[in-house]
Parts: sequence; structure tokens; C-alpha cells
Amino acid sequence: MTAQAKRRVGILGATGTVGQRLIHMLRNHPYFEVTAVAASDRSEGKRFGDACNWKLPFEMPEAVKDLTLYPSKVETGKPRIDCDIIIASLPGDIALESEGSFAAAGIPVISNSSAFRMPADIPLVVPEINPDHLDVIPTQKKNRGYDKGYIVTNPNCTTIGLVMALAPLQQRFGLEAVMMTSMQAISGAGYPGVASMDILDNVIPHIGGEEEKVEEEPQKILGRFTGAQIECAAFKVSAQCNRVAVQDGHLESVRVKLSKSATVEDLKEVFESFTGLPQELKLPTAPVRPVIVRSEKDRPQPRLDRDAENGMATVIGRISKDTIFDFKFTLISHNTIRGAAGAALLNAELLVAKGLL
Amino acid sequence: MTAQAKRRVGILGATGTVGQRLIHMLRNHPYFEVTAVAASDRSEGKRFGDACNWKLPFEMPEAVKDLTLYPSKVETGKPRIDCDIIIASLPGDIALESEGSFAAAGIPVISNSSAFRMPADIPLVVPEINPDHLDVIPTQKKNRGYDKGYIVTNPNCTTIGLVMALAPLQQRFGLEAVMMTSMQAISGAGYPGVASMDILDNVIPHIGGEEEKVEEEPQKILGRFTGAQIECAAFKVSAQCNRVAVQDGHLESVRVKLSKSATVEDLKEVFESFTGLPQELKLPTAPVRPVIVRSEKDRPQPRLDRDAENGMATVIGRISKDTIFDFKFTLISHNTIRGAAGAALLNAELLVAKGLL
Amino acid sequence: MTAQAKRRVGILGATGTVGQRLIHMLRNHPYFEVTAVAASDRSEGKRFGDACNWKLPFEMPEAVKDLTLYPSKVETGKPRIDCDIIIASLPGDIALESEGSFAAAGIPVISNSSAFRMPADIPLVVPEINPDHLDVIPTQKKNRGYDKGYIVTNPNCTTIGLVMALAPLQQRFGLEAVMMTSMQAISGAGYPGVASMDILDNVIPHIGGEEEKVEEEPQKILGRFTGAQIECAAFKVSAQCNRVAVQDGHLESVRVKLSKSATVEDLKEVFESFTGLPQELKLPTAPVRPVIVRSEKDRPQPRLDRDAENGMATVIGRISKDTIFDFKFTLISHNTIRGAAGAALLNAELLVAKGLL
Amino acid sequence: MTAQAKRRVGILGATGTVGQRLIHMLRNHPYFEVTAVAASDRSEGKRFGDACNWKLPFEMPEAVKDLTLYPSKVETGKPRIDCDIIIASLPGDIALESEGSFAAAGIPVISNSSAFRMPADIPLVVPEINPDHLDVIPTQKKNRGYDKGYIVTNPNCTTIGLVMALAPLQQRFGLEAVMMTSMQAISGAGYPGVASMDILDNVIPHIGGEEEKVEEEPQKILGRFTGAQIECAAFKVSAQCNRVAVQDGHLESVRVKLSKSATVEDLKEVFESFTGLPQELKLPTAPVRPVIVRSEKDRPQPRLDRDAENGMATVIGRISKDTIFDFKFTLISHNTIRGAAGAALLNAELLVAKGLL
Repeated sequence: MTAQAKRRVGILGATGTVGQRLIHMLRNHPYFEVTAVAASDRSEGKRFGDACNWKLPFEMPEAVKDLTLYPSKVETGKPRIDCDIIIASLPGDIALESEGSFAAAGIPVISNSSAFRMPADIPLVVPEINPDHLDVIPTQKKNRGYDKGYIVTNPNCTTIGLVMALAPLQQRFGLEAVMMTSMQAISGAGYPGVASMDILDNVIPHIGGEEEKVEEEPQKILGRFTGAQIECAAFKVSAQCNRVAVQDGHLESVRVKLSKSATVEDLKEVFESFTGLPQELKLPTAPVRPVIVRSEKDRPQPRLDRDAENGMATVIGRISKDTIFDFKFTLISHNTIRGAAGAALLNAELLVAKGLL
Repeated sequence: MTAQAKRRVGILGATGTVGQRLIHMLRNHPYFEVTAVAASDRSEGKRFGDACNWKLPFEMPEAVKDLTLYPSKVETGKPRIDCDIIIASLPGDIALESEGSFAAAGIPVISNSSAFRMPADIPLVVPEINPDHLDVIPTQKKNRGYDKGYIVTNPNCTTIGLVMALAPLQQRFGLEAVMMTSMQAISGAGYPGVASMDILDNVIPHIGGEEEKVEEEPQKILGRFTGAQIECAAFKVSAQCNRVAVQDGHLESVRVKLSKSATVEDLKEVFESFTGLPQELKLPTAPVRPVIVRSEKDRPQPRLDRDAENGMATVIGRISKDTIFDFKFTLISHNTIRGAAGAALLNAELLVAKGLL
Repeated sequence: MTAQAKRRVGILGATGTVGQRLIHMLRNHPYFEVTAVAASDRSEGKRFGDACNWKLPFEMPEAVKDLTLYPSKVETGKPRIDCDIIIASLPGDIALESEGSFAAAGIPVISNSSAFRMPADIPLVVPEINPDHLDVIPTQKKNRGYDKGYIVTNPNCTTIGLVMALAPLQQRFGLEAVMMTSMQAISGAGYPGVASMDILDNVIPHIGGEEEKVEEEPQKILGRFTGAQIECAAFKVSAQCNRVAVQDGHLESVRVKLSKSATVEDLKEVFESFTGLPQELKLPTAPVRPVIVRSEKDRPQPRLDRDAENGMATVIGRISKDTIFDFKFTLISHNTIRGAAGAALLNAELLVAKGLL
Repeated sequence: MTAQAKRRVGILGATGTVGQRLIHMLRNHPYFEVTAVAASDRSEGKRFGDACNWKLPFEMPEAVKDLTLYPSKVETGKPRIDCDIIIASLPGDIALESEGSFAAAGIPVISNSSAFRMPADIPLVVPEINPDHLDVIPTQKKNRGYDKGYIVTNPNCTTIGLVMALAPLQQRFGLEAVMMTSMQAISGAGYPGVASMDILDNVIPHIGGEEEKVEEEPQKILGRFTGAQIECAAFKVSAQCNRVAVQDGHLESVRVKLSKSATVEDLKEVFESFTGLPQELKLPTAPVRPVIVRSEKDRPQPRLDRDAENGMATVIGRISKDTIFDFKFTLISHNTIRGAAGAALLNAELLVAKGLL
């Protein structure tokens, strides 16, 4: 990075579970500083330090305490926040209008929401996997009449752990089909989110809209940019999503059917050697090892493995032959770090490194 | 039942989690009374009420408090317990010798352990599904040189919930393949079992030997008795088993591939209309509805559904089309009731009803 | 009871956590039948079976499913519900106006809320302890201009477990001071209530308004009815209230300073022999043993003891000498049964038995 | 510190919950390096990396993986471990003989166990509170015939959080009496420790020996070294100890009776201004703020506050007037850091700073 003033970041959904993680990750960041925060309408005008019900086991950074909250919702007209980049973690319904308004107003938007993930002219990016999908941005600008603004999205928090495992398999062996059953953390539902009466001594076998997202996002991320648009890969995904009494970290039981034959040792080798552009560029938030393989018979576990590489790694274990598909294994990914705040931040860092910001 | 003195039941593993359930279920039972209890060697000679660390939220039945504990382990020679039937919940290593000794000594044994489940001359029985497999008993006696004694087994606690769902599907549509991912309760590991440091805010993606059992038992239960032996069915099962922070009740995410085409409504109908011999005979422990279908989008749940029909029903929900196999759904079954103590007891009741006891 | 048509019960707050318990406890009740249900304004006109998010591990009683919901809130004018008795579980702010309106309209009100607990002309009744406080009702009617209507209240869910232990001590030894530290269940906050992110792997050392209630209610319950009004007892109570990850059952660590000397054995004896009018009258919901003493060193526990006597008993253990006060002990009481629905129902049964209903 | 070779540390109980914490805290330590590890007899001779069931959410430090385990138990004769200091976390029964053997063999022992805490010639030290108690060491050596060896102990994990709050109160206002009710984390019982069936949806109102320790240790820590021995302070402590479903961090509800009058603001001020020798000496493990006061009505909480100052601070909140004693408040202290590994390590650092090591 050339010496340059830090980019001014505006955060939409700043008081939420993901917003708080992002603010924590952005303290002392070499490229970025948080200069604006936005939350729900009813918080408008309040001091961040007063309005935010801070739930992380770290102190709230001093730098944001005195910022005044803007509303995240922008339906029409020019947004009032002045910054170099927006990172947004908004509910889907609000995201569509608000994020579009910022992009139209000339501000690049990194979006955590599902609103813009699937259109063929919007990149759904995991920097280790498909950084080349950012090349669709000129098409996006043309299609949507954006000038300097554009939208880059990151995947659903359950998708991202899965595609970190699928990418090396697809590259080396080809992918035919994927069955994934998740055990997801309560922080994925935000705050207050899941009622304690619902999850203590219990599992909830339903997370609204989650299975649908996991069944379509991987094919886009692992798809090809053709020069004109992003074409989804052809493998099929089946997802069953469950909520369990875990604070952070989505655990996934996965079976895969590959195009070529392989051994358990082959899988370990491709997982452990997987690396990408963020590692090459040494981006500040990039994990040194994006995928970690553990050989203990009872790992990975949410409590012990979710924070590997500061929550940015996918940890895989229990790799073995499946009786129906080719292989089965278990993986964990931190849902609010790699699955949300960290995913967005790594995308932002990649944009800086590529000169797009 | 004709009026008759109650059968005298001896319980092996009486102080364990399953043994306690069984003792609770046998209080005031119309066919049976507990007359002997056995546990580990170090409890031998102690009063049950003193030696048993009772963990159920009910009072220990008065009738067992003053019984003196025998050792469950019988390696050679004639066992010392005199009773009409043994119900055993023992670790696999002890079960093999001990249960065999009782059968050889002329006492019918109902076994919860995995030691005798898979031999072709031993029936692995779920009374609603394969009561005819009891007809292998004469062959078993001949093979093993038993006189009045014999061994009847019930399935693993994860298998049984699954086969209650698979049986009606197989009967109507034929079964090709089954993928099952479980979220299992801590009571399945007995006491003290799972350490609290391992399961609070966590999931353990490993249960020793469990996946192997679930991948082979369903085919035997849903197999055919040919007149000579039990032939396993041909469908394949893949299992991934996880331990979650739930007190009781194994939740299972299931996908099935059927031989014939069907609709979601067809599945609901065959599940809800499923019934068998225990219902026909009105056995004391038989659930009126062995399979219950719930239509709410977030059911079944362990806490709300595990006790349906006194813990003897399998509750199924979230039935929908799968993107890869034909259907996916979620089921719950109470692991220490339907999955162990209740399974054994229903087998015992069936033996009485069939005149085998 | 003489044969008589069942009293028609209207339930305010019927869809809430306590309302659901009450409906469950009133199925097949010998004195009462639920004929009207009320909940929040936004549920008005809906079918109970559709509007109620039923959270108990029992089936919703058929008899209430088709009842149409009234609004619980009645600010002015005559309420629209026609019934013989109202049992209300409302937030304090709504309770004041609504419950007063029903009483003014001629319908006796059994109130679970804190709104009317402390006025000297309103009885705060635990039937085993102070049934004579009902004699203040004529004064109440005169003071408030009620005709047939009146209000009877039951204590806070943390108070009631405590006073069940204090009453026998006060009667026999006199009470000087009480220090109580609670570990309260999440169901005490209703649904959705406590966020799971707040309580998993955590304790919340604050429950709004709880300490204040526990510090003043016991003195009224253990006070005397003078013929004109209720005079509070003089002992002091100090309370520190915490929320823990327990589904049901408030556990309390208690120290007491008595007026007369006593031994641990004396305490056990007065606890175990404690009984009252509900036991004498054999009221349908009365526990046979209102106070149970357990001698194991690690009891009582929420999971094992909250359901003693169908959740209507207070279970006490760990009675020992204190280094500062006279004695310390631990007690558990089921917060939504003895602490709310069951307390109200037992009061209603007492009113029937006394000819007041 | 003058430049000097690092002291060689031998850890007894190295594979346990506290031992693991200590090893983690000693990675890259400026004064110390771990050169020997010991555990139970059955681990003797094994490689630490193989024998230790590592349960912390951090990687096991490379430096210890290849160390060979010694037995912690030394009953008679000269211990085989050669090092400059022993830090021991042993069960009480083993500690007495083993720790005594090391001291007798000339190696200073920092002990976490209860075996040597109460004798008047052994210092029970919290460096912020009573570093002068180390001056009893010469007496200890004389009494016990030690040459270079000696024993320094740190308090029980529940005591230490409490005395961090009591010390500033005693210094400024004098202490008359203390009532403490704890809600303790499962990690306090070690691994496997508390069975999950016992603590999920439950509280255990019993921790063996804990109440006794908390009722006597504070008076010694806050006592005076007279030049000859340590005299305990005169205030009384009453403790009721409970185990809750929390991974780490002991929460304590406290009431105090002071000798002089004070206000809530006075208490906040003395807590926040409390500091001691470790802060003055800037010992590596010393918290900058040993006591932190939080003003939110629902803090401190285990999950949010246990890691304050890397787990070395006591966090206090909810300070208010009590109805019986003078004040009540709630505090949290990390039981395996400040309560064990960190307490021992800070003592070791103090010994180095004082030239005793």
C-alpha cells in the first residue's frame, strides 16, 4: 500500500451484532477508519455509545463512542453520509433500497445482506476464491447507471464456510453434488434474535430463508466470469439448517460427490495447501491459512476452533469415505467474523489492493 | 392377557441412565415387576437406594429401593439372578459375555447393547416394524445351544427414530438411499458421560461407533425373515452424528431417495397412517400414534416434542422436496425412552403377547 | 364441594407463558372451565389456537383452541368478557387499569401482577399461610366501591418460594432478618423475554423490579389481619436477584436470623410438618406436602426438584448453621406453577371452598 | 529486571485445566520458561503433546509439546524435576506431600492448592493486597527446616475475586461482616469435572469444601504480618456456593457491613482507585486496573466481563444500599486466570521482583 490517508468508512447497521464485530475489527486498521455510523430510524441522532447495546467481550472502541447515528434506511434521494466506502449489514428489506441509493450516489458499497447477492452483474466475492468476479463491476455500473459507486457482496454466513471447503475440491477434483446439514450459532440471528426459551436444552430445525441461500450461492461463487457476466457452476447443493445453543460458529456436516476419484489423504492435502490472493497480497485481515485441517477424531468444535486465525479460517475435520457420496467431513466457520464482518472487511481490503477504492 | 402372576424382571445396568428410565417405566406395570437389579462390580451387595445416583425428575420407586445389587458382569458359569426375564443395558464389552450367560442359563434376555444386534440369528426388533423377526428364535436356540433362554435386541437410540420414519416409506415407495445427520442428546452417553466443559456453548461432531451402527442396523430391521434367517434390505445409509447441548431427544436431519415417485402429501399420509402390531394388541407401552407429523415450520424440537406419546412416538416435520435426493425432513425421538428403555420394554410386552414369555 | 355448574373462567394474558400454564392446569378441572381468553390488542378477534405460540411440552387443550381472543387491556368502561372469575397475568402497567375495571364491573379478579399486591385493603394470599387475609375483602369493596367484584393477588414468583420456607420458621421461632440471593429461570421473563445471546454461558445479575418486590412482599404475607387491614410483619429482607440458564424453577440461597434459638433438626422438623388450609380442604391443586426437605448434599436442583408435587411444592435442602446469621439453606420453587399459574389457581380454589365464588 | 537467563519453571498438574492456562500464559514470558511438566502417574513418560487433552481455544504452545511428563506425585525422597521454581495445581491430597517434597528439596513452590493455605507461617498472597506477607518466609524456612525452598500460596478461585473487593473497603472503612453467594463456572471443577447432565438447564447448590475455604481465607489475606506470623482479620464471612452453566468466571452476589459509614459513591471511588505493588512494579501479568467498576444496571456478567484486563481484573457492579447490611454489589472474577493460573504467575513475578527467586 502506498502511504495514503485512511479511507473513511460508513457503517450501516452499526449497532447490530455484525456491526459491532466490524467496529471491533476496524479499530487501528491500516487502511480504514470509521467516520460514520447508521442504525435504525429510532436511534437517529443519538450518540453511538449511548444507543448501542454493546455485546462483545471487548471494550467499545473510544473512537466510535461519540459518533452520531444516522438512519440506515434511505429510500429515495441522496444519502446524507459522506464517506469513501459503505459497509452494510442490514435486513434484506431495508438493504435493497438503502444500498442501492448509496451506490447511485457514488459510494462503493460492501454488502452483507442477501438483497444483491444473486444478480449476474453483482460480484459475490470470497477473496480467496473468486477475486476475478470483481471484473463485472464495469458491467454493473453500465447496467445500473452508477458512476463511481458500485456494489460488492459477500455470502451468507453458512455459505462461506462451505465454499471455503468446496473451492479446493472443485479446483482439483470437480464437484457433482453437496449435502450440507448445519448447526448454527445464535449470534447468526442478531440481537435479541433467538429467545432463550427456544434454544436452551433444545435445537430449532428452521432458519428462515437459510436453506435457499446455501443451495444457490455456492454455485455463483464457484462460477466463472465470462467477460460479460458471472455464470453459475452446475453442481447441486442440498441444505438442512438447524439452530443450536452455541454463541458463535456455524458447524456443518458435509457430504460431497466429486467428478474425479480421490483419497482421504488427497482431500487433506488440497485443503491444507489452499491459498489465494489475500494471502499473496498479505491483506491485513487475511488468514495465513484459510483452511485448517485437524486430525483429532472429535474436531472441529465451535468453542475450540471458531477463533482459529482470528475467526477467519475454516477448520475441517473428520474427513472420511461416505457410504453414498464420495466423502463426508465436518467444518466450522465463525459466522460473525468470516461469515459477515470479516468477509466484508476482507473484500474492502481487496478493493483497496486492486485500486478500486 | 390372561390373569397371571407378573413376570419377574431382572435389570442389568440398573443404576445407569437407561436402567433408571426402565425402573421408572416399570413401576405399576401390568405384566412385569422388578425383582432383581444388577450394576457394576463395585456396587455389588449395596442397597439400590444407596448405590444409585438417581437423575430423573421423578421419585425413585419405593419397590426397588431395598433391592440388593448383583454384579452385571457374568463371564462364566451360571448367573446368580433368578427371574423370568432379563432386560439389559450394558456397555458392549460386558454385554457379550453377560447376556450370553443368562441366555445359556435359560433366561430370555432383552438387550439394549450393540453386542448381539447384527448376527443373522438374533432378532433386532421394533415391534411396529418387524415383529415377525422373532420367528428366528428357534433357529437361534438351535445355533447357540440355548434351551429356554434366547436373546432379543432393540436398535441403537439413533437408529430407532430413523427406522420409524423409513419403515412406512419403504413399505409404500421403496427405499434407495438415506442420508442422516444427527444432533444427539447428552443423556445418550450415560452418566457422567459428556463433560460439561465439552458441550456448553459447543457441539461435538463425534460419537464413538454411532455412525457405523446407524449405517447398518436399519437394513436389518427393514430386512426380511426368510424362514431361516434375517436378510438385510439393500438400501444404503450414510450417517454423521453430532452431540449437542440437549438433555434428552435425538434430532435427525434426513434425506431419502425413494424407488417410486411421491409427493410431500403422500409422505405425510403414510407417516400419519403408520401403525403396527403393538397398536393392534394395545400393548401397555405402545404409543397410540407411533409416528406424528407436525406442520409448523419450526417443529419438531427436542424440548417440545421428545415426550410425545410418553416419549414413544417419532415426531416428523419439515417434509419437503430435496434438491438432490427426493425428500428431506426432520425427526425427533426420545433416546432413553423410545431409544432404549421403552424399546426394550415394548419388546418384552410383545414377547408376552406372543406367548414367548 | 356441592355439585354445581363449573365456574366460567376468563383468562387475561392467556397467550403468555403463565397464561399457557394456567390453561394447561385448568384442563379437566373440577371447579372451573375456561370460557374466555384475552391477550394483547393485536391478537383481538383471532382464534386462540392460531394466535398462541404454544411453548409447553404438552398439547394445547382442544377446549381453548377455538375461543376468540379478547383484548386484555380495558382502560375505561365495562369489560366485554362475561364470566364468573378473571384470572389475570398481565404486565404491571396494563394490570392496574384492566383488573380494576373487571372488579368494578362485578367480576372477582385473581391477579398475578404486581399492580395490586401492596395496598392494605387487598389480600396478598398464599393459601397455606394467610388464608385469613381474605377477610379484608369487605373492607376492600367498601373502600373501592366494588359490588360483587374484588381483587385477590398472589406473590411474585421469587417471593412465594421464600415465604413457604419463612412461614413455618416465623410461626415457631420468630423471624428477625432474611438474606436471599436468587438464581432465576428464564421462563420468569415470559416469551420472548431473555435473549439467548444474553444467557448462554452467562448469568445476568439484574431483573427489573424483582429485588424490591421480594424485599416487601414477605412481610405482608406473613403479616396480621387486624380486623380492619393487613399489618406487615417487622422482619427485614434483603434480595439479590440473578437470571441463570435454567428453563423453569427459581433457586434461592437463603440465610435467616431467628428470634429464638433452634437446631438444624428443628428446622427440618418444622419444614416437613408444615401444612395448611389447602391440605386440610384437599383443594384440587394443593400439594400434599407444601414443603419438602431433601437431605442429599447437592439438592435441591432446578431440573430434579422443580416438578415436585406437580410443581406446587417448595423443596429445601442444605440446611446448616450460618457463620453470621443463624441458618442458611437452599430452596427451589417452580416459578410458572407455584410462582404464578398454580398460585392463582389455588387462590381461586380457596375462594370457591370459602363460598366467595 | 536486570537482564538474566529466564527462570526454569516446572509445572505440576500441567495437563489439567489450570495447568493448561498457565502454560498458555507462560508462552513468551519475559521472566520464565517452562522446562518441566508433571501430571498423574499414568501419564508418566508420555509426551506432553500426546497426553494432554488440550481444551483452550488457542493452539498448544510448540515449546511444551515435546516435553516428557513427570509424575506430579512425590511422596518421599528427592523429586526428579530440576528447575528454579515449581508452580503447582494439584488436588489437595496429592499437594500436601508433593509440594512439601519440592520445598524440602530446595525449590520454591507456588501452590494453587488448598493444602498449605492456612498455616500461619505460609503466606497466602494476593500481590495487590498483602505482598508483605512474604516476609514470613524466613520463619517458614526455620519452622520447616527448608533451606532454599519455600512455599507461597494463592487463594481459592472464589476467594480471590471477593478479597479484591474487600481489600479497598477494609483499608478505608473497616469490615465487620461479609455475606457472599456465588454462581461458579464449570471450569472450576477441572476436566471432566461437572457432568453435562448435571448442569444443563440446572444449578448445583453444592461445591465440595468451597464454602469453608471462602469463609476463612479472606481473613488471612486481609490479616497482618506481625513480624513473627500472620494474624487473621476479625470480620466474619458467610458463603453459599453454587455451580451454574457458565464456562469461565465466578459471579458473586455480595453484602458487606462496614465499620464506618460510607456512600455508594465512596465505594465506587475506593474500588476504582485501588492499586498495589504489581501495578507500581509493572509486573508483566499485573492488570492496569485490578478492580473495574461498571455502571450499567446489568453488569458485570461472566461472558462480557471475565476477560477484562486479560482475565486479571475483578469487575464490580450493581453497588447499592442494602436493607440489612450496609451495601450490596455483584462481582466477577475469572476463575482459572485471576483465580488460579494468573494468581500463581503474578506471585511468581512478585518473587522475582523482590529478589526472592
